[in-house]
Amino acid sequence: MSREERYARGLEVMRRIDTGEVREAVTSVADVSPELAHQIIAWAYGEMLARPVLAPRDRQLVTLGMLAALGGCEPQLELHVGASLNAGLSPEEVVEALLQSAVYCGMPRALNAAAVARKVFAARGIAAPDPAC
Amino acid sequence: MSREERYARGLEVMRRIDTGEVREAVTSVADVSPELAHQIIAWAYGEMLARPVLAPRDRQLVTLGMLAALGGCEPQLELHVGASLNAGLSPEEVVEALLQSAVYCGMPRALNAAAVARKVFAARGIAAPDPAC
Amino acid sequence: MSREERYARGLEVMRRIDTGEVREAVTSVADVSPELAHQIIAWAYGEMLARPVLAPRDRQLVTLGMLAALGGCEPQLELHVGASLNAGLSPEEVVEALLQSAVYCGMPRALNAAAVARKVFAARGIAAPDPAC
Amino acid sequence: MSREERYARGLEVMRRIDTGEVREAVTSVADVSPELAHQIIAWAYGEMLARPVLAPRDRQLVTLGMLAALGGCEPQLELHVGASLNAGLSPEEVVEALLQSAVYCGMPRALNAAAVARKVFAARGIAAPDPAC
Amino acid sequence: MSREERYARGLEVMRRIDTGEVREAVTSVADVSPELAHQIIAWAYGEMLARPVLAPRDRQLVTLGMLAALGGCEPQLELHVGASLNAGLSPEEVVEALLQSAVYCGMPRALNAAAVARKVFAARGIAAPDPAC
Amino acid sequence: MSREERYARGLEVMRRIDTGEVREAVTSVADVSPELAHQIIAWAYGEMLARPVLAPRDRQLVTLGMLAALGGCEPQLELHVGASLNAGLSPEEVVEALLQSAVYCGMPRALNAAAVARKVFAARGIAAPDPAC
Repeated sequence: MSREERYARGLEVMRRIDTGEVREAVTSVADVSPELAHQIIAWAYGEMLARPVLAPRDRQLVTLGMLAALGGCEPQLELHVGASLNAGLSPEEVVEALLQSAVYCGMPRALNAAAVARKVFAARGIAAPDPAC
Repeated sequence: MSREERYARGLEVMRRIDTGEVREAVTSVADVSPELAHQIIAWAYGEMLARPVLAPRDRQLVTLGMLAALGGCEPQLELHVGASLNAGLSPEEVVEALLQSAVYCGMPRALNAAAVARKVFAARGIAAPDPAC
Repeated sequence: MSREERYARGLEVMRRIDTGEVREAVTSVADVSPELAHQIIAWAYGEMLARPVLAPRDRQLVTLGMLAALGGCEPQLELHVGASLNAGLSPEEVVEALLQSAVYCGMPRALNAAAVARKVFAARGIAAPDPAC
Repeated sequence: MSREERYARGLEVMRRIDTGEVREAVTSVADVSPELAHQIIAWAYGEMLARPVLAPRDRQLVTLGMLAALGGCEPQLELHVGASLNAGLSPEEVVEALLQSAVYCGMPRALNAAAVARKVFAARGIAAPDPAC
Repeated sequence: MSREERYARGLEVMRRIDTGEVREAVTSVADVSPELAHQIIAWAYGEMLARPVLAPRDRQLVTLGMLAALGGCEPQLELHVGASLNAGLSPEEVVEALLQSAVYCGMPRALNAAAVARKVFAARGIAAPDPAC
Repeated sequence: MSREERYARGLEVMRRIDTGEVREAVTSVADVSPELAHQIIAWAYGEMLARPVLAPRDRQLVTLGMLAALGGCEPQLELHVGASLNAGLSPEEVVEALLQSAVYCGMPRALNAAAVARKVFAARGIAAPDPAC
């Protein structure tokens, strides 16, 4: 495949879970770091995240874990909370995955992750999860 | 619930995904840090990981992501690669979840995680995944 | 103890070092992640931080070290600089604890921590420490 | 050398790569953490970064790597993107060094670093690098 | 003060909490990185950790927090568990400080820190803390 | 380019700085994670690190900074200390780059990095740098 074909495939894979925000964030750095924007789309989405072994929903569970653990990646976590909902995880499942970081990463990381989810849910008009959960 | 009841519930939850290694690792520090051993079992497993919103298999996907991202948690990742298999993830799915850290955490973390999976698979006599994956 | 009793004990423990900001930050995520808010108060404060082996002042020294080292936890560090003052550490002692991160975590983390302390001191009308320190 | 002499030497070393922003950021915490401000200038610049074994340009390559990897140090990375240009690295070289974090630290850290470079370049009126690079 | 005088002061400060292991670890890299060994003793101990604002015992509480949070610094944590005991913290206080990382850094970091304490206590013939703590 | 062609280009790029150890480390996980091994060679080396904007020597300076900062990546740092020497950095320059992590990442990371350099130098029979440096 040519560079352009790989980029096109990446956009296609990205569209399975992205309604535009991920693409916007990536292309926002394209003027300064064109190769990074290309590689995120062509390689990260086009090659790595396109692989069939894990469904997009499953991949999002892994990604939510990684971004919560890394810390300082709130911009990306914001995008991936949205992508997770697009991939079919319910808001309660997203909240639960991030809650799990309280066990593995501690309360500060868990709080910062929850704050990101709160921001995304508010923007999408998603009602608070059932507190009985 | 009393402290002892919560501990018992934690052991019960842990047994859904643990064939003994997680318990052994936790109790190995019990002589020096008895409260930590208690809390991992009674709180982490008994309260947090027992919650029904995510199935054990899904929880393991999140955990694999977090442990790969944290770095320096190879002892815990070793236990959780095993727990993931016990929870119903296939070896290919475990490898794929850890491979995803190449995108979100970089090649060094991904390599260290793959080395841990390799060690666990060898110990369990699991044949190498189909390279066509 | 019931869930409500543990939550009440957590609030009580939190009040030893919190004049409201910690509680506000925690409950701000309660609509989206009610379990996280519950666990921080009921478990983190009610069980773990309530333990008598270390005085609140000593606990705050440990916490300042951890939050400075983690990085990306400025929201929590802001709360804990305040909690540290409430627990009886002087402004000079708080600044000194954060200064120590220059040795163990490097100048960037130390600078970011100092900036947080500066923000809290300004908000509380605390005069600059004696430069002879 | 006295404390004052070491501080003066540090300012001198800092001026090789700083047009004022680094000094401003450091002295901005001097009212609250005077010793930190002193040590960054007198020790970090005056002793450590003054050493001749690596040229300032080479030191900046190492620093860009470290700040991108640490995460959560965007304020310092912003200063050091500027310092790197002052030290003689071209905008393309700075972008390339940060792009390399995609391989070693993952896409989130790389994106956050690229966003910082973008901000600095815009402030300095630096045109976008040649996308053919 | 000359370089040699600062180094001597550093050794003196180090001896308040070190019975030889810290010095040995630092000087073990002196053949390859002589300046690092010099700076840890002359600057870290001689200038920074010598400051009177916090007592050695208090400094150790901060350090235990930082090293547990950083992860991957088990060699240094091992030294500082010992230094903490030398500085007057009891084994129960050391264990409690590290236990606190379960709240702020998560269970993996807390477990790894507890394992380090266990190793040091065993080497020093320190009996297990009273489980009633 | 086909997958095989990109892999071949990656091996070629890797050989500029690798005398076999990097390749061995990567292919050691190939049985369990064949895609990771492929991507490190075909993508990391074949696409990203092959880019001409920075010379291999310059790229190694960035990599040494990132690996020292990440922590817990001693296996990769060991390989890259060797690759840095192969790329034309002198032992003194490698030591100096790692020493710089004392400023930006703190003494623990700096010590762990120096210990790795020491191990590689000993294995290669490299004499200790001139302590006057």
